Amino acid sequence: MGSLNDFDLPINDNISSNVNNPMDPEEFRRQGHMMIDFIADYYKNIEKYPVLSQVEPGYLKKRLPKSAPYYPESIETILNDVQDHIVPGITHWQSPNYYAYFPSSGSIAGFLGEMLATGFNVVGFNWMSSPAATELESIVMDWLGDMLRLPKSFLFSGNGGGVLQGTTCEAILCTLVAARDRTLNKIGKDNIGKLSVYCSDQTHCAFKKAAQIAGINMNNFRVIPTTLSSSFSMSPELLRKTIVADLEAGLVPTFLLATVGTTSTTAVDPLGPLCNVAKDYGMWVHVDAAYAGSVCICPEFRHFIDGVEGANSFSFNAHKWFFTTLDCCCLWVRDPAALTKSLTTDPEYLKNKATESKQVVDYKDWQIALSRRFRSLKLWLVLRSYGVEKLRGFLRSHVKMAKMFEGFLVADDRFEIVVPRNFATVCFRLSPSAISTKPVLYEINGTRRSSGGAEKALTVNEINAKLMDSINGSGRIYMTHSVVDGIFLLRFAVGASLTEESHVVTAWKVVKEHADAILSRYNTCEFGPGQ
Amino acid sequence: MGSLNDFDLPINDNISSNVNNPMDPEEFRRQGHMMIDFIADYYKNIEKYPVLSQVEPGYLKKRLPKSAPYYPESIETILNDVQDHIVPGITHWQSPNYYAYFPSSGSIAGFLGEMLATGFNVVGFNWMSSPAATELESIVMDWLGDMLRLPKSFLFSGNGGGVLQGTTCEAILCTLVAARDRTLNKIGKDNIGKLSVYCSDQTHCAFKKAAQIAGINMNNFRVIPTTLSSSFSMSPELLRKTIVADLEAGLVPTFLLATVGTTSTTAVDPLGPLCNVAKDYGMWVHVDAAYAGSVCICPEFRHFIDGVEGANSFSFNAHKWFFTTLDCCCLWVRDPAALTKSLTTDPEYLKNKATESKQVVDYKDWQIALSRRFRSLKLWLVLRSYGVEKLRGFLRSHVKMAKMFEGFLVADDRFEIVVPRNFATVCFRLSPSAISTKPVLYEINGTRRSSGGAEKALTVNEINAKLMDSINGSGRIYMTHSVVDGIFLLRFAVGASLTEESHVVTAWKVVKEHADAILSRYNTCEFGPGQ
Repeated sequence: MGSLNDFDLPINDNISSNVNNPMDPEEFRRQGHMMIDFIADYYKNIEKYPVLSQVEPGYLKKRLPKSAPYYPESIETILNDVQDHIVPGITHWQSPNYYAYFPSSGSIAGFLGEMLATGFNVVGFNWMSSPAATELESIVMDWLGDMLRLPKSFLFSGNGGGVLQGTTCEAILCTLVAARDRTLNKIGKDNIGKLSVYCSDQTHCAFKKAAQIAGINMNNFRVIPTTLSSSFSMSPELLRKTIVADLEAGLVPTFLLATVGTTSTTAVDPLGPLCNVAKDYGMWVHVDAAYAGSVCICPEFRHFIDGVEGANSFSFNAHKWFFTTLDCCCLWVRDPAALTKSLTTDPEYLKNKATESKQVVDYKDWQIALSRRFRSLKLWLVLRSYGVEKLRGFLRSHVKMAKMFEGFLVADDRFEIVVPRNFATVCFRLSPSAISTKPVLYEINGTRRSSGGAEKALTVNEINAKLMDSINGSGRIYMTHSVVDGIFLLRFAVGASLTEESHVVTAWKVVKEHADAILSRYNTCEFGPGQ
Repeated sequence: MGSLNDFDLPINDNISSNVNNPMDPEEFRRQGHMMIDFIADYYKNIEKYPVLSQVEPGYLKKRLPKSAPYYPESIETILNDVQDHIVPGITHWQSPNYYAYFPSSGSIAGFLGEMLATGFNVVGFNWMSSPAATELESIVMDWLGDMLRLPKSFLFSGNGGGVLQGTTCEAILCTLVAARDRTLNKIGKDNIGKLSVYCSDQTHCAFKKAAQIAGINMNNFRVIPTTLSSSFSMSPELLRKTIVADLEAGLVPTFLLATVGTTSTTAVDPLGPLCNVAKDYGMWVHVDAAYAGSVCICPEFRHFIDGVEGANSFSFNAHKWFFTTLDCCCLWVRDPAALTKSLTTDPEYLKNKATESKQVVDYKDWQIALSRRFRSLKLWLVLRSYGVEKLRGFLRSHVKMAKMFEGFLVADDRFEIVVPRNFATVCFRLSPSAISTKPVLYEINGTRRSSGGAEKALTVNEINAKLMDSINGSGRIYMTHSVVDGIFLLRFAVGASLTEESHVVTAWKVVKEHADAILSRYNTCEFGPGQ
């Protein structure tokens, strides 16, 4: 492998433009077919790998050279290295045994759409730069809005409109900035320090970050507490109380983030009542349905977004649980002008007759970045390849598998469901009643400790954490956790596209085996091996 | 094509989880090979299409159904529609006859890297979520920083570090927020209205937008004027004067954006002297080398970023002129802690032992979004497939072709080079001396108008705009314009990966033919056809 030491060598000015072309179509074809086979084989063999990567920090630095090669390397060599050095460091989100975080559900159609977008490689910042990129996006967003039965006012056909963002974080930032500027235009730009914004203690951390980026005074970032008894849903009464107190303190309530399907427990905020409160104070409401939005294309789930007609904007991630590879966040707004007022740029080098005609959408003015990929292709391919019928079928099959897993838990009285399941994510733990109330001796880092009695709550959490680590360490399945109202829970999120019922049956076996081992270790006075 | 009218049909609860799997490996293989052939054929035939799409606003709505299909459609049907309905609405950025804006240079390696990233489809927000995604990114950013001879302090190996953002807009926003918070931590959060930021009138519009998003008071957004006589480069003296005046007015100078290769004319700001000024006032300097950064891997171009050692951060777009498909912006910072202080989130559901060990990078804290694609794969494939040698060769071949085009212009005294060429973009126009100084009658929208005399400057711009529209309307090549110091100029940006010398020769013929026609129409008293 070469080095950079030739940096000061004389320059060869006779370099011909006939160096092998980096986009030669026939070479593209040859290497492209190889890569398709590589990835198809990866999916075929994916269950052979531990789901959660088992490498140690710094593993890759030891395996790769210190600098870029000076001379070209063949695709064969590179693919060998991918197999030998990259695959071991992958946590296999596409594995059928992946139940962590939320799914990152791929599909053939999503993959092909991404290929097409990469192949055209247009920079669709405005209509002019590639009309199909803009027009397909508008069309697909109306299709999808229709599938979700969003209010007409969120669709282009009703003077609203949809846009594809990369992530929910960006969707939140854009709508927050629009809301911020709408308010500041009324009360004066100098009053940015007075704006207050609202969410619950279950809201995704993306909102806090967006507020920080947008220059909101973090002393005015209001977090409404939720409780297990109300399934972690935001209380409209508590929201109103908080707003009233803020108004009395001279603040200007500006923005509410409501969630349908929170990250920890897939809790659902009551959109209708919350929007009514926000309306009384002229606030912008954004609905973050990042995870659960997709399943609302099924009539039996649509009620979870009832009340969205009172909101100003709504988003969900097609890359989460809608078979559209990362990244693809669908955002609809009732008033596109509020977005574009804050986000429009108009430099000379982008001026063109189509924009001047005002007949076209220029999506650069609906998002943070100027450049944008042709993301609508993958969404279009997903909608067409599967159709509404199959998409509902896929989503329902995930819900059915989650129900099945829930059934296994319910039938085993050592486990408990921590919060009622809304979608395809089950939140559970080893029940306190399954864990001895007698003080139990165990050893951590060589120190003998005792559980039980006053320490019991802590112990239940500790034991559940141990159960999760033990399961994930096996590499057979992968789950993640959360802590709500002081309770450590395990999340079993069904949604990886390759997952079938047999995988869920196996997953339950894995959970049970590790639970058996953990309970037998910590529910007796015998010492297990050091932790 | 089905409709949504069945929304209220009874739900079939017996749906089996054995619906065809959307990721079936063998079906993936079959469809993947088809798509590779489709795209290879697209590249093979790309010169048959008009470079600039010639469709009218709303063309696609007329061709596509009003709603998503209810039943699945075959990939064959979809690909036919891509060919018939999407391709006509594409502006072919990958065409060898594309010279507009800046290149969006694809490559086989970049494409394959994107395929791999899409295939793994991991969400690499932190180390734990897929260690290879984080580690490869850190390694590749050090490789590339080394290739650019960035100061060691920008590399992980020197306690700085690099991160892949989607776009320069995001890189600017992140560094601006870091700089903003660094200053506010000293002077108090309530003083956000006092912060002032600096750029030139040639700086990309992304900076203004970032400042707006970050809550900077736009009354304190300072734009240093530049002139043709100094090739549109920012004056350190003028910068200092502006800063001093702002300090006297009670403002707090916070951030300077310097550019290497501006969008209009590829002007270069003098980094060394500008950083010296900024240093005197404790400001953050970000260097935006979005376009020109890549060519600085060639020793003969490296001097353009001399002085970068005085900056706080540096970015360039590998997706512009570095064969790495959209999106891939490389950002290095000297002080990662300044970034992560502003952008870190730490929710319970993402807590993990690797993060707690502080042995790992969690890139979510270096960017706006939480989710992130495995972008380093494509950059790694580009570096390895071509190596430093070929990459320099590709870039030099583009510069050589731009020089050749410049030579054609210089040899034809009807044209003039508006600003000296720095890289592979030539800024030119029909020279005022080539346009009759006698009043010339011509017709616009049926109204007879006269050029020449006092109106001459306007006429020169108008005639050059007509030249550009005429060329682009032909579909044979595509160029875009800018206006600097009142001068309308055409930009000929070489960099599409398929472009070879023969294309540039053809491009020159096209320009000449259209110039002949335009001049013969407007430089006589004969009326051409209506405009």
